[in-house]
Amino acid sequence: MTQNRSELRFRPNKSPQRIRHGFPWAYDNEVVTDRRTKKIALGTIVDLLDNDRNFVAQAAFHPDSKIAARVLERDRDVQIDAKWLESKLRFARDHRDRMFDTPFYRLIHAEADGLPGLIIDRFGDVLAVQPNAAWIENLLPDLQEALKAVFDAPVIIKNASGRARGLEGLSEETVVLDGSVDGPIPVQMNGATYMADVLGGQKTGLFYDQRPNHAFAAKLAKGGDVLDVFSHVGGFSLAALAGGATHATAVDGSAAALELASKGAAATGFDDRFDTIKGDAFEVMTKLADEGRSFDVVVCDPPAFAPAKPALQAGLRAYEKVARMGAALVRPGGYLVLCSCSHAADLSTFRQASLRGVGKGGRTGQIVYTGFAGEDHPVHPQLAETAYLKSIFLRLV
Amino acid sequence: MTQNRSELRFRPNKSPQRIRHGFPWAYDNEVVTDRRTKKIALGTIVDLLDNDRNFVAQAAFHPDSKIAARVLERDRDVQIDAKWLESKLRFARDHRDRMFDTPFYRLIHAEADGLPGLIIDRFGDVLAVQPNAAWIENLLPDLQEALKAVFDAPVIIKNASGRARGLEGLSEETVVLDGSVDGPIPVQMNGATYMADVLGGQKTGLFYDQRPNHAFAAKLAKGGDVLDVFSHVGGFSLAALAGGATHATAVDGSAAALELASKGAAATGFDDRFDTIKGDAFEVMTKLADEGRSFDVVVCDPPAFAPAKPALQAGLRAYEKVARMGAALVRPGGYLVLCSCSHAADLSTFRQASLRGVGKGGRTGQIVYTGFAGEDHPVHPQLAETAYLKSIFLRLV
Repeated sequence: MTQNRSELRFRPNKSPQRIRHGFPWAYDNEVVTDRRTKKIALGTIVDLLDNDRNFVAQAAFHPDSKIAARVLERDRDVQIDAKWLESKLRFARDHRDRMFDTPFYRLIHAEADGLPGLIIDRFGDVLAVQPNAAWIENLLPDLQEALKAVFDAPVIIKNASGRARGLEGLSEETVVLDGSVDGPIPVQMNGATYMADVLGGQKTGLFYDQRPNHAFAAKLAKGGDVLDVFSHVGGFSLAALAGGATHATAVDGSAAALELASKGAAATGFDDRFDTIKGDAFEVMTKLADEGRSFDVVVCDPPAFAPAKPALQAGLRAYEKVARMGAALVRPGGYLVLCSCSHAADLSTFRQASLRGVGKGGRTGQIVYTGFAGEDHPVHPQLAETAYLKSIFLRLV
Repeated sequence: MTQNRSELRFRPNKSPQRIRHGFPWAYDNEVVTDRRTKKIALGTIVDLLDNDRNFVAQAAFHPDSKIAARVLERDRDVQIDAKWLESKLRFARDHRDRMFDTPFYRLIHAEADGLPGLIIDRFGDVLAVQPNAAWIENLLPDLQEALKAVFDAPVIIKNASGRARGLEGLSEETVVLDGSVDGPIPVQMNGATYMADVLGGQKTGLFYDQRPNHAFAAKLAKGGDVLDVFSHVGGFSLAALAGGATHATAVDGSAAALELASKGAAATGFDDRFDTIKGDAFEVMTKLADEGRSFDVVVCDPPAFAPAKPALQAGLRAYEKVARMGAALVRPGGYLVLCSCSHAADLSTFRQASLRGVGKGGRTGQIVYTGFAGEDHPVHPQLAETAYLKSIFLRLV
């Protein structure tokens, strides 16, 4: 079978061995860049060859990124088209449908699901697609066709707010590609109703990744009260209330997020056990401490303080501060939940910063649980060291 | 308040700073050993002092161990007695009772619960005590008194099979200290009935630590068949059957363990969906592969192949082999669950060995979940790097 794909070759002294063993990327310093490759458009699917011109993989090319090529397919004769995308979607869906009773989950988690740069979150019939790489932006019509083959009359949204899109030279508008959406979508998780603003919210409107950690925190909170700092749309608060918490207070800087949290609480019938505080998390925690307040469970799930290496040291100081201030608000025998979604801070590093903060806050305790992102956020085996989400559950004396 | 405890002093150039920050041990090269300390009996509770004779902590002394002193109490004026033990037991029990609907759990997990070297597993009214350190062996009468104060007429068993007891110069008999036990105890976990042989079994008769990982595997196994290699009393098999697996096969070298597994299956009504194969796990996996057998879920939960540093390299080769042989038995789209209870192999190291094995078996996939020991096995914050139990859940293409 003849293919008319452009070719991208490994440099003479570079081996594709790692890719042959499953690694999903070739770096810019591993491949030959010359006048010919300069003409290959961003997002083009190329044949990645070793220096002897043996086929290695079909890959998505990025001329200006450190990751020059992302592996898509290891069979040269397979056509990357709607059918190919459909088989990936079906494989991914089968796992999610096995894991979850309701059709609310991350359907595609990029590299780990074999589709580099592509995120798809499912909210029932609504599929929020984040094409964060040029190759899949190019194939959007095929992706729509594939989604329609796998799902029954889906509403398809293109959410183009991903930070990575800028790097890929992609525009940032969010549009409904198929069907229509009418306001926030109610999402059932852990016994609560969350409101997902799939058109206007952060990322795809709701974070599914913390679902198992919400569930665990809910067990801890049964019969107690909860302070949910950096609450976004109330992930931890609403799960805790569904699990039997007596009261939850959500703290966030975004009035829009808190409004969705309140709507979720109302939709689940939790109005009388839920309140919100809009404000800077650090200022609110300081004020609560000054007032002598304490809680059975304090959750701190801040935005990524250390999204990348250069921000690591400042990020770790921020995590330490969060831990110190959070610990001060936990009753003796209560629980402190500390989360990080920073790629640059691995579990061990984040844990050390957190424990330093707890210690500086004059508290000691035990770690009762460590959680990662949920099972709809699989991890590529060769990228396992970089799993971004960590949640540490401490019980304090 | 005057105390008549012996004293153990830090050496001039050694700082107790780490212990003041929460670390639970002093090493033999940190403390002064002389004619005087040689006279202190193993397990004696001493006052640990810095070199200027300032009090650091009350600690259990071990003259011949690398860990010379284990911190028990940071208040000099507190008496370590039945009342002190009772408060530790109550604090630990509160957390477990919050976590579990039934009274079957690890009640005390040594250092992490503030009681170095002491393990207590609860099987309803039966408390299986493993005093793996001399200090608590000395305080056994106090511990019994404390247990009776916290629990209503408990049956108390002293299980003295722990490896650590030899190092502590303790005998290895298992005896019933209070009440009586009549045969294996039925234990409810994850919807199944397990049979715990608290007098004759491995460790305390049943491993509670894998409970959340059993539960997760059960979700994966719904509607599919399971091969449970190194099954012990059927932890993964019975949970999977309770979760809706069509069939489970338990493989173990111990006829006694398999008999308990079968009794558990019978007690839960799973007889017709459960069978066992007694034999060497590697030989059985080879035979199944030769027969062309495959399964929707394959679980490999071997004994610690790398219990300590010197065994690490050989242990990692064994884990790689397990992964390779296990992967060969998983159907496309099915799941491979790989566990390690080796202290010496951390998550990253174990994962790498496992992925190497999967790759050598010609398979690729995604990591869908990583689990640790359950929430009745808390981790001491300062010993978090050494968390022993890791379970990796892979979905294979």
